[in-house]
Amino acid sequence: MHTYTGRILYVDLATGSHRTASFDESFAKEWIGGTGFGVKLLMDHLPQGIDAFDPANPLIYVTGATTGAMLPCTTSKFGVFAKSPGTGLLGEAYSTGTWGAEMRLAGYDAIIITGKAAKPVYLWIDNDTVTLRNAGHIWGTTTWEAEHLIKDELGDQNVRVSGIGQAGENLNRLACIINDHFRAAGRTGLGAVMGSKNLKAVVLRGSKGVTVAEPEAFMELAKDLHERARGPATAKYRGLGTVANMLTLNAQGAMPTRNYDDAMFEDIEQVSGELINEKYVVKIQACSGCPCRCDHIARVREGSFKGAIARIEYEPTMAFGPYCGVSDPEAIIKSYESCNLYGIDAIGAGIVVGFAMECFEKGFLTLEDTGGLELAFGNGAAMVELLRKMALREDRVGDIMAEGVKKAAEIIGQGSDHFAMHIKGLEMTGYDIRTLKTAALGYAVSRRGGDHQRHGSYGHDLGGKVDRFTADAAKGQLVKDDEDFYALVDSLILCKFTRNIWQGYDELAKVYSIVTGIPMTGEEMHLAAERISNLSRLLNIREGLTRADDNLPPRVMKDPVRSGVGKGQVTSQEDLDIMLDGYYSSRGWTVAGVPTMEKLEQLGLLGYAAIIEDQLP
Amino acid sequence: MHTYTGRILYVDLATGSHRTASFDESFAKEWIGGTGFGVKLLMDHLPQGIDAFDPANPLIYVTGATTGAMLPCTTSKFGVFAKSPGTGLLGEAYSTGTWGAEMRLAGYDAIIITGKAAKPVYLWIDNDTVTLRNAGHIWGTTTWEAEHLIKDELGDQNVRVSGIGQAGENLNRLACIINDHFRAAGRTGLGAVMGSKNLKAVVLRGSKGVTVAEPEAFMELAKDLHERARGPATAKYRGLGTVANMLTLNAQGAMPTRNYDDAMFEDIEQVSGELINEKYVVKIQACSGCPCRCDHIARVREGSFKGAIARIEYEPTMAFGPYCGVSDPEAIIKSYESCNLYGIDAIGAGIVVGFAMECFEKGFLTLEDTGGLELAFGNGAAMVELLRKMALREDRVGDIMAEGVKKAAEIIGQGSDHFAMHIKGLEMTGYDIRTLKTAALGYAVSRRGGDHQRHGSYGHDLGGKVDRFTADAAKGQLVKDDEDFYALVDSLILCKFTRNIWQGYDELAKVYSIVTGIPMTGEEMHLAAERISNLSRLLNIREGLTRADDNLPPRVMKDPVRSGVGKGQVTSQEDLDIMLDGYYSSRGWTVAGVPTMEKLEQLGLLGYAAIIEDQLP
Repeated sequence: MHTYTGRILYVDLATGSHRTASFDESFAKEWIGGTGFGVKLLMDHLPQGIDAFDPANPLIYVTGATTGAMLPCTTSKFGVFAKSPGTGLLGEAYSTGTWGAEMRLAGYDAIIITGKAAKPVYLWIDNDTVTLRNAGHIWGTTTWEAEHLIKDELGDQNVRVSGIGQAGENLNRLACIINDHFRAAGRTGLGAVMGSKNLKAVVLRGSKGVTVAEPEAFMELAKDLHERARGPATAKYRGLGTVANMLTLNAQGAMPTRNYDDAMFEDIEQVSGELINEKYVVKIQACSGCPCRCDHIARVREGSFKGAIARIEYEPTMAFGPYCGVSDPEAIIKSYESCNLYGIDAIGAGIVVGFAMECFEKGFLTLEDTGGLELAFGNGAAMVELLRKMALREDRVGDIMAEGVKKAAEIIGQGSDHFAMHIKGLEMTGYDIRTLKTAALGYAVSRRGGDHQRHGSYGHDLGGKVDRFTADAAKGQLVKDDEDFYALVDSLILCKFTRNIWQGYDELAKVYSIVTGIPMTGEEMHLAAERISNLSRLLNIREGLTRADDNLPPRVMKDPVRSGVGKGQVTSQEDLDIMLDGYYSSRGWTVAGVPTMEKLEQLGLLGYAAIIEDQLP
Repeated sequence: MHTYTGRILYVDLATGSHRTASFDESFAKEWIGGTGFGVKLLMDHLPQGIDAFDPANPLIYVTGATTGAMLPCTTSKFGVFAKSPGTGLLGEAYSTGTWGAEMRLAGYDAIIITGKAAKPVYLWIDNDTVTLRNAGHIWGTTTWEAEHLIKDELGDQNVRVSGIGQAGENLNRLACIINDHFRAAGRTGLGAVMGSKNLKAVVLRGSKGVTVAEPEAFMELAKDLHERARGPATAKYRGLGTVANMLTLNAQGAMPTRNYDDAMFEDIEQVSGELINEKYVVKIQACSGCPCRCDHIARVREGSFKGAIARIEYEPTMAFGPYCGVSDPEAIIKSYESCNLYGIDAIGAGIVVGFAMECFEKGFLTLEDTGGLELAFGNGAAMVELLRKMALREDRVGDIMAEGVKKAAEIIGQGSDHFAMHIKGLEMTGYDIRTLKTAALGYAVSRRGGDHQRHGSYGHDLGGKVDRFTADAAKGQLVKDDEDFYALVDSLILCKFTRNIWQGYDELAKVYSIVTGIPMTGEEMHLAAERISNLSRLLNIREGLTRADDNLPPRVMKDPVRSGVGKGQVTSQEDLDIMLDGYYSSRGWTVAGVPTMEKLEQLGLLGYAAIIEDQLP
């Protein structure tokens, strides 16, 4: 019986050397894959307290146990980890498309890249052959140009490229890593880590097979899941895609509008998912081996943004639409395209633009600062231009905004931190958490910052399962449970769009065992998930996080929502404290948010006790 | 050039005689078709003040100008009109499937059936050959058995049957008329009018063509609409069907639960559209010539309700689910099937069952009344059994509830009218109008009673386009505009699921002209729509309606919602009065809700001035 003995590729950019190592069954059982591997490997390879742009900051790619196999909706995802230039804490981001499967087919479960190349390079991994190649002629190009040039140079149009655009090269703290044109390891600025290493791209060709321990059971499972994945649970993603959320979140008074000035956008019909699909979507496509086909590719056919193309999603549509007061879908599509080309996190970028617009309207940024841009809310053309300036650090506004909204507010001062919408330095995503209290807690404690993807706790609020306007301690347990389940989803790595087709921890344990040959129960899976959540916390504590960082932007706590069902709502410091206490308690942490020795012992994490010893009562 | 000169078939059941008549272009231009024809023909053929079960009450079938042609989503709908046994006012209901197209292919734009047959009969229309046939051997059967027997007897499996089950025969005031097994002219008790005439069914065979005035332009239009109709605007209906609303309306705190005790159902996940599709839907089908295919046919595979089959929709799922506190989808599917078999309005039936459950829990109905049924909220088996009793008027409970909720509350007394959820005698539908103020106004003034289908004004509230919790006069204009547009949609007759694919009055005028050869502008269309709305009002006023009938159920005005985003909401008499004043004013009516002479003159309705003369100031 095959068991899961994984292979890790180590690459040192400074010397050009590389080696491989293997992890054993007990490592796999403890850390599962994906997130678990990423957090564990980062914890063990990141020197404490270094700057994110220090060459020693390891850039880590991970896949999951089923990546590259034919289990629907699990075959294509991969994760990237490093210390984040935006938050100074755990940096992590996930992408999908075809790159992840290729990495596994090349024979790797993890790739750890350290050091800094003397000159721009790209890393070329052709199964077991690993080389660094000169990227001097590619430096300064967009992600799409770079991919094109690399494919031509290697004489192979089927290599897979994961790389950065000008934003990453320029150490823009919102820089992301792009693959397959439209897919991004988007958040926490990992593209800037890549840029700081003089690494333009990681290029893969994999032609090995992926084996599973129990082929027959696996095929049964794959067939069953194929049917389930095409079922009603994913109908929304196939139909309109995630932009279906535009009208519903707006109607529910949870649509961040004009830099969180309101929670509803008056021109929502002009940027609805229905309208965008009708007028702009030209193609629908899927990731490797996925029957859901959620990718809705939109194209602008005429006008000033003619030719712009983007894989349209809720978050960027929110961020470049209502969040910036923009009601022109063509400016939104163009902005999203710019982010993919320059390699900028399209969520964070929109939040930064919204912040810049408010600064401009308040007079904190002048026309001189903006290079003549009239950065008023609703000005789509100015938004597009600002994104370019941010990528290239052009003018004062481009240079400041490239630092991300937290540092930008520090530079601008004048109380602008009141409306700098971030948590822990990561820009917020598209759920107004004044009207969604469970989500507010989830955001506040999320290990990567202002983000809904580590917990998905908005589901309780929007699904009407809880009183979304009342903060209570019981929401702590909900968020804890969500986080652990999501930690497992991201460790396996499953596409989150299919999170509801799986029958809980027991089925996920069964899947893992069938694929890896490692016996695993639902309970063990659950414990592993909690272990991963706790190790993430320990990593963040080691890098300086305290309870005070589990906070909310001042505007969320103090400026009431102006309209809609959530009119008048804030999520106050008092609200947050009630929920935080409940959350820490359900986690078995101290009131300071520190895991106890008992918790470490229970999870087999006593080796990390030194991190917290002097923080315990 | 062909112009629209329509044919009306008159049938007198008392004598068995029939004749045809034609209407001219000016009639078509004034009344469009569908609703317009139905209201106009009823107004002119219904003797004032008679009982709904009087043989003189005309039962009127109508089609639209494009019925039977190949314009997507307009080919299959038909309407039925008569004085309603439930409300004593305008009775109207619409159905789709294949019957409507067949009626047009048989050469008729309207069929007017008066009188009462001495013995049970069915009406057999084979193109121009019209006969009454004995239905003695069919009387007492379900709608499905009747269809089967009729097809066998006529030796033609392709005839189309629109008929009643036992409920209609027994003058159940909730009785509907069923065609194509799963399609119903559902509301306002028209099946009982059919039953009162000893008419079991109207059976059709049509083999004539349907011609259009401008074939080439028509084909262009049909192709274009075919694409639009398959686009994003109808994605919801193709995907999960209208049961997609179960989770969203619940989350928005607008789900009538346990006879309007609350606006959220705690077990909503168990009756979600996602779950029902996943576990029960076995087939998806479409009406004649429709690319949308919204029919989701659900089947119970095992257990006590094994074999039950129903075309699953939001409204009955709401009514037999949350509204009755039932969380068993199999009991819901079985109940819906029972309604189709017995021929009962599945919406009204659920509201009546919920009422009966509250009466039982309050002790207003005893076990003796119920024939031993434990009619507690949540008891799905008892619900199924009560529906049978209502159809057959078995036991006191069956006999009382067959009268509809308004009359049932009058019989039961003890203040039960406080929670008898109807307007004008028509049971409410599935939008909690305490939390949706625009919808509340729409329901209050709807010409057929407690209903969302004459205005669709919930769209403003749920779409977040207005403050849904505040009553203001401006909502009057919104409802007025909605009603007029819907009057036109129902006159053409278009499927409402496609209401958003049309580009307003101008495009609808163009469609009408291309099909009928009658020149028509958007403005003329708009005026016709308003004319139809006003004639409906005049008809209702003639039959006794006053401002006091434009009301809301006492529970809506006095019992606050218990949970969800709308917690604490009522729509009070004061709220209603503010909105009513705004509505009447936008309509150009008096504060008593009576059209003025100026309005009648503007709409060419002065011929009906006698109805209102003594009501004007």
